[in-house]
Amino acid sequence: MPDITEVSSNKVFGGWQKVYSHESYELGCKMNFGIFLPPQVEEGPVPVIYWLSGLTCTEANFVQKAGAQKYASEQGVILVAPDTSPRNLNIPGEDDDWDFGTGAGFYVDALKEPWKKHYRMYSYVTKELPALINEKFPVLPDKQSIMGHSMGGHGALICALKNPGLYKTVSAFAPISNPISCPWGKKAFSGYLGGTETNAAWREWDATELAKKYNGPPLDILVDQGKEDKFLKNGQLLPENLLSAAKDAGLSLVLRFQESYDHSYFFISTFIEDHIKHHVKYLKS
Amino acid sequence: MPDITEVSSNKVFGGWQKVYSHESYELGCKMNFGIFLPPQVEEGPVPVIYWLSGLTCTEANFVQKAGAQKYASEQGVILVAPDTSPRNLNIPGEDDDWDFGTGAGFYVDALKEPWKKHYRMYSYVTKELPALINEKFPVLPDKQSIMGHSMGGHGALICALKNPGLYKTVSAFAPISNPISCPWGKKAFSGYLGGTETNAAWREWDATELAKKYNGPPLDILVDQGKEDKFLKNGQLLPENLLSAAKDAGLSLVLRFQESYDHSYFFISTFIEDHIKHHVKYLKS
Repeated sequence: MPDITEVSSNKVFGGWQKVYSHESYELGCKMNFGIFLPPQVEEGPVPVIYWLSGLTCTEANFVQKAGAQKYASEQGVILVAPDTSPRNLNIPGEDDDWDFGTGAGFYVDALKEPWKKHYRMYSYVTKELPALINEKFPVLPDKQSIMGHSMGGHGALICALKNPGLYKTVSAFAPISNPISCPWGKKAFSGYLGGTETNAAWREWDATELAKKYNGPPLDILVDQGKEDKFLKNGQLLPENLLSAAKDAGLSLVLRFQESYDHSYFFISTFIEDHIKHHVKYLKS
Repeated sequence: MPDITEVSSNKVFGGWQKVYSHESYELGCKMNFGIFLPPQVEEGPVPVIYWLSGLTCTEANFVQKAGAQKYASEQGVILVAPDTSPRNLNIPGEDDDWDFGTGAGFYVDALKEPWKKHYRMYSYVTKELPALINEKFPVLPDKQSIMGHSMGGHGALICALKNPGLYKTVSAFAPISNPISCPWGKKAFSGYLGGTETNAAWREWDATELAKKYNGPPLDILVDQGKEDKFLKNGQLLPENLLSAAKDAGLSLVLRFQESYDHSYFFISTFIEDHIKHHVKYLKS
């Protein structure tokens, strides 16, 4: 088990917000993650919720802007927020675009050169990071769940749908719900997986496609979507496709359209309490 | 009355977080300010709390990191967060130091060249900006109060102490409580006001000195201070001097030392609810 190095530590809402770095073997580079430890960890292990961030983010956005620590402290859950891609690998083109490469790992395991060696965010967030967290922090390893925003909402959904039973529940803010049908997703999957939307491999990383064939324990999915989100309006998010697939598959999915809200952390901060309570309902039952 | 231009607008906690820019006549440059409008403004005017930020900040830090909108929404108060200095004036040396010049206006009206024409943050935050806010937004102009952090805690305290009755109450997070006795304050006052701490003018801008001679309506001051704040430990903040002066002058001041907390917005976000409730007690009575 590799070492972790404390980057920062701040007392907040009675607990501790920390950032650590470690050498990731899945990604082949140094990675940061944020972790909030609520005061309840002094009494023993607690459940853990993973947060996956959106395009261009690092671990810092959620840590500094979501205001989630208050509710995690009240509910007694750990929050873990990883970075959104490997970094500083000197792969040609990694920094050319804001929606591909650095800051845009899309939570897939890449199949195509030059990405496939390092761009393995799916294995990182579903396997390497949880193993590390379970080893180093007082978590209940069978009480974990996952949520995320935008690209990270897509990530949270596919992690849960591809691993029945691994997460007690899943939720998302403005997720990229059907990447094989939107410009961001087509660009990312074409780059990381190769080919076009006719490539069958794409469907293995698409929440709407995965929902259609989900077969596992009941999964209660909560999705919030701002009605004034410009990325909803220009067809990047497509939550109605996910809703329809979930309905057909008998999956429980509540999609809430929030009047006047946009795609920002102001939107997230307003509804993060609801999401944490949604998770806690399943993490503590 | 000059125009204001909307820079951004985001729905949050049922209200609107907006940023505006305007041409300031006190400062002779374009300035931004953040304003949170709670849902209650739809029913009529509400009280307003001014927030003054610390060294290096713009209006964005408080807006994005304090999480104050939730409590302002619950309590029905407007929050106004100005920038911390004039900007882009091409005054020689304005960008040389992080603790003087740009981002470090110290909420004084400068007396010394080359600063005295533009560095008039005191007049800006006590006169120009409130007049603008009262004109453009649904505020109750006789129901205002002020709070701030670090350099802005100093700012909030001197604004209240120099203007008995203008603010219903005042509070501060880790304020620079006695600037004439600390390195940050000596540097700033020497630059903006001239001379050394024997210059009588310095005492007109020092919260501890102003508390000693306060003569006005009762003022109930709340101060929170993290015990692990490195700037407390290295003698920049000196809240004990303010406490002692307030006690001698018969001013009500509660100074709370918060175990393990530091100087960051994590500290602010944890206790901002208490501060807003403290203000509302006086704004709504």
